[in-house]
Amino acid sequence: MLVRPQLGQNIGAAARAMLNFGFTDLRLVQPRDGWPNADAGPSAAGADAVIESARVYDSLGDAIADCHLTIGTAMTMRTHVCRVTSPAGAVAEMQALPSRSALVFGPERTGLTRDDLLACHALCTIPSNPDFGSLNLAQAVAVLGYAWVVGHAAPAASAMVNHDGPAAGAELAGLIAALEARLTETGWYNPAPGLAEASRRMLVNVFTRPGFTGAEVQFLRGVVRNLAGRPGGKPG
Amino acid sequence: MLVRPQLGQNIGAAARAMLNFGFTDLRLVQPRDGWPNADAGPSAAGADAVIESARVYDSLGDAIADCHLTIGTAMTMRTHVCRVTSPAGAVAEMQALPSRSALVFGPERTGLTRDDLLACHALCTIPSNPDFGSLNLAQAVAVLGYAWVVGHAAPAASAMVNHDGPAAGAELAGLIAALEARLTETGWYNPAPGLAEASRRMLVNVFTRPGFTGAEVQFLRGVVRNLAGRPGGKPG
Repeated sequence: MLVRPQLGQNIGAAARAMLNFGFTDLRLVQPRDGWPNADAGPSAAGADAVIESARVYDSLGDAIADCHLTIGTAMTMRTHVCRVTSPAGAVAEMQALPSRSALVFGPERTGLTRDDLLACHALCTIPSNPDFGSLNLAQAVAVLGYAWVVGHAAPAASAMVNHDGPAAGAELAGLIAALEARLTETGWYNPAPGLAEASRRMLVNVFTRPGFTGAEVQFLRGVVRNLAGRPGGKPG
Repeated sequence: MLVRPQLGQNIGAAARAMLNFGFTDLRLVQPRDGWPNADAGPSAAGADAVIESARVYDSLGDAIADCHLTIGTAMTMRTHVCRVTSPAGAVAEMQALPSRSALVFGPERTGLTRDDLLACHALCTIPSNPDFGSLNLAQAVAVLGYAWVVGHAAPAASAMVNHDGPAAGAELAGLIAALEARLTETGWYNPAPGLAEASRRMLVNVFTRPGFTGAEVQFLRGVVRNLAGRPGGKPG
């Protein structure tokens, strides 16, 4: 999925690269110039079905609501604790998962923001020249598409056992919203704008990064409800 | 560290294997026949310093209190969600961490229990004959020692960025104890013995597996305190 893409021709070129490697589910979050975009068709070069079936979302959260593993593409971040993988590593994780996963690409000029990446379980960095590392959007899509097809080359260094896979984005967002609501009630969560923002980021990060399963997210919602002294939590 | 080791000669042989690969910090949790054990010396075959400096603990929690990454050795578990790695993978994680980590070996006959493994961040399985997979305790120690020395062979599939490393065992235990105390107060945590036990296991698992940093554990303690409507949490 493409977050805040700027140029229609890049969206078209990305759609073409997707179809080159067998992908058709293109999702656009807040495309700068609206959608549909007449510039996308020509550079799609025949990948019209991908362009025509593209869906538009108001937020990254909405776009990943049904995705169970979300990996953002970016250069290495230094602002929060995050797991960084390679294209081969990202692809191996996604191929190991029976449920839907998402690869997220940021806007051409700036890439994904810190908040975008906080919503991702991990970050994928394409190895490139450290002095000239920024790839064209559609070329980055092509690299990941190629990695997908090559796939399964490197065995994972570790694997999760007895794992349904991470919860869907919407389930996780529900847990985080419940936590935020309760912490706003108690007054802790919103003491001052700057502090509250740092708290919010840490909250999103510590509950997103682990890749909790759906059952675990439900369990944690029960924990939150009951920490607040409210009955009705499902006893585990 | 050896949890509930049975035979003194195995403890001695494990100490020898440790020193063979340069390790000296032997920790024993509830050794069956007490400590010191006269049978350990002979099989240590010269690794007397390891035997003499061995420390004894009442519980695995006490033994790992100052360790930031704890990996248990076991055959694959099917009772909870856990991360499984190889000797090379386990060693790579430990060598990447500047702080103290622990390799945990179970009793000869039964191996580590489910509760022992819940206290571990990950599980290490030694590749072996599926029809005859149980290794002698000291030989398992030797395999991991060898893997340590060979080390750094396989690049990790993904790595954590901006990571102080996981919190010490004692910090994590404090968070889990605070959660348990509050959930016992509300009555949710202890509705019936069987249910409470399943809840406790899931609580330990969801807060142990992610490898939260010390700062994150402190943050989560603030969240717990404030969800309960108690002031004094450090605003983040």
